[in-house]
Amino acid sequence: MQPFGVVPVIQDGDYTLFESRAIIRYYAEKYKSQGSDLLGKTIEERGLVEQWLEVEAHNFHPPIYDLVIQILFSSKLGFPADQDVIKESEEKLGKVLDIYEERLSKSKYLAGDFFSLADLSHLPFTHYLTGAMNKDYMIRDRKNVSAWWDDISNRPSWKKLLQLYPYLIFGNVLQV
Amino acid sequence: MQPFGVVPVIQDGDYTLFESRAIIRYYAEKYKSQGSDLLGKTIEERGLVEQWLEVEAHNFHPPIYDLVIQILFSSKLGFPADQDVIKESEEKLGKVLDIYEERLSKSKYLAGDFFSLADLSHLPFTHYLTGAMNKDYMIRDRKNVSAWWDDISNRPSWKKLLQLYPYLIFGNVLQV
Repeated sequence: MQPFGVVPVIQDGDYTLFESRAIIRYYAEKYKSQGSDLLGKTIEERGLVEQWLEVEAHNFHPPIYDLVIQILFSSKLGFPADQDVIKESEEKLGKVLDIYEERLSKSKYLAGDFFSLADLSHLPFTHYLTGAMNKDYMIRDRKNVSAWWDDISNRPSWKKLLQLYPYLIFGNVLQV
Repeated sequence: MQPFGVVPVIQDGDYTLFESRAIIRYYAEKYKSQGSDLLGKTIEERGLVEQWLEVEAHNFHPPIYDLVIQILFSSKLGFPADQDVIKESEEKLGKVLDIYEERLSKSKYLAGDFFSLADLSHLPFTHYLTGAMNKDYMIRDRKNVSAWWDDISNRPSWKKLLQLYPYLIFGNVLQV
């Protein structure tokens, strides 16, 4: 179903879609009348949601992905953890979180004063960072990032997801 | 204006936005009643536009970016072109274009039978590939990709942009 041979792929009736950030946009749009409007209410809000989704994809994701692979999965994947990559990735991620700290001093969430896909997209990997990876200090050392993380990680929908699909989320790390 | 210190950044009145793919989505949404509807007309079409925008960002862009840097800009940036990177990037890009060839055997454009942002986002770098980089064969050796490229690169709006801003587009290569 996915020509590049990676998951996730969804099928909604006879409609097939791949690429994780395309999938979350699709479901957010389809169900925007239910629950939170995760895409913003105006063109300008949507623009900022898209901006921070891009920041997540291009700035946040690469270093945290490398940290997760090196720290949590290297032994399962059969190679030794590379301490240089870990050090470099943690530095890069720290710089990104410094920018988040500044941004979150001005608004409660990344795209503004509303919870959006831009926040949601940070949940799975930050969940590892603060949990299994023992790097909670990267969040806790930054006051605004820490308050933001407490807010978004305590949303009932996220807690329910973690209860329902602990293995799915674990498995998805290698596939996002 | 851009906390990560890279361009492009736009200001539209007092509204500021960065990240190139967030910017093109914003303008497409804002002016969707004028000219082509670049985001699709339904939620399902929009989903496919987003899917192929993600493919462009994550599969197409990295190898073509490396090719552009190594072939066109290494001497300007003061380092020797790395032939191994060039070879590897060309192979990776070729595999992506093989998937495009298959996709474009089923629909005229990437997201369906309508021109969209998913096609538009390929214009600047493919322009270099087929022009200054002398790798036109990567497009021409693939029948459907070749027809698609002829179609999208001959749109009056793209030809006008190349006439108006040849240097801007050139400079943006290092900034996308």
